[in-house]
Amino acid sequence: MLQRTYAGQNCSIARTLELVGERWSLLILRDAFLGLRRFEQFQHSLGIARNVLSDRLTRLVDAGILDRVLYQERPERYDYRLTETGRDLSTAVLALMHWGDRHVAENGPPRIAEHDGCGGLVEERLVCSECGAELTPDDVHIRRGPGHRTLVH
Amino acid sequence: MLQRTYAGQNCSIARTLELVGERWSLLILRDAFLGLRRFEQFQHSLGIARNVLSDRLTRLVDAGILDRVLYQERPERYDYRLTETGRDLSTAVLALMHWGDRHVAENGPPRIAEHDGCGGLVEERLVCSECGAELTPDDVHIRRGPGHRTLVH
Repeated sequence: MLQRTYAGQNCSIARTLELVGERWSLLILRDAFLGLRRFEQFQHSLGIARNVLSDRLTRLVDAGILDRVLYQERPERYDYRLTETGRDLSTAVLALMHWGDRHVAENGPPRIAEHDGCGGLVEERLVCSECGAELTPDDVHIRRGPGHRTLVH
Repeated sequence: MLQRTYAGQNCSIARTLELVGERWSLLILRDAFLGLRRFEQFQHSLGIARNVLSDRLTRLVDAGILDRVLYQERPERYDYRLTETGRDLSTAVLALMHWGDRHVAENGPPRIAEHDGCGGLVEERLVCSECGAELTPDDVHIRRGPGHRTLVH
C-alpha cells in the first residue's frame, strides 16, 4: 500500500508526489526514459540497495507508471517498461532536468535533450490552449477546479 | 547544510531533487506560486509541524529559490517570496500538477491554471528550438552534454 504522505492535501501535485516523490523514484523514471529496463541496469546506474530499488519499482508498477514484462521464460525474467501514463511524465522530468541545468550544473548540462534527427534543443513552453500565446509564470492565474473541496485534516 | 541525498548521481534531475525533492518542499513552492508568503499561511495550508516547515523554508532560501524579506520592523517580521530562480520552476510544478490532474484526480482537477485575462487553459508543450516543431517523448533523444563525467561511487 502506498503511504499517504500528503494526507489532507487535495492537490494534484501532492498526489503526484505520493506516486513519484519517494526518494529515487524520479531517478528510476529518468533511467527508464534513457532506455534502461532491467533490474540490474537500474541497480548499476543508481547504486542503491536492491531492496530499496525493488520497493520503488513495485510502487511504480502499482501506480501504473511502469509495466513489469516477462522477457525470458526459462528462467523467468522480467523487465520494466514505461506505460503511456509513465511516458506522460516526460515533460515534468525534462522540466526538472532543465531547471537543474540552468541553476545547479556548474560544468554545463550532463545530458542534453535534443530533437531526434533535427538536433535542435528540446524546450518546455507554457502555451495558452485558446489564444496560442506563449506564457510566462506572470500570465498564469490559478482558480478552483471541479475537484476542489475543503478537507478536514 | 543540504544532505547530498543523491551522491554519485551526476544529473540535473538529481541535483534539482536535492533542493526541492525533500518531502513538502514542492508543496511549499506550490503555495508560493499561489501567492502565499507568510510562515503562518504556509503552516495553515500544509498543516505540518512548525520545525519541519521552518527547516524546509530555510533550505529553499539557502538554495536561492525563496527570498526571506523583512516586511515589518517592530516587531521584525519576515515573509518568503519566490526569486527568479524559484519562479523558473513554474513549468516543472505545472507539469507535475497537470500529470496528476490527468491520472489521479478522480473528481476532476482541484485547481485550474488559466491564461490570465484570456481564460484559456495553460498547457506545457515540448518544442524544438531549431525547427519549432511540437515534440512528443518519442521525438526526444538524450545525449551526453559538457557536464557529463563518470563518477566514482
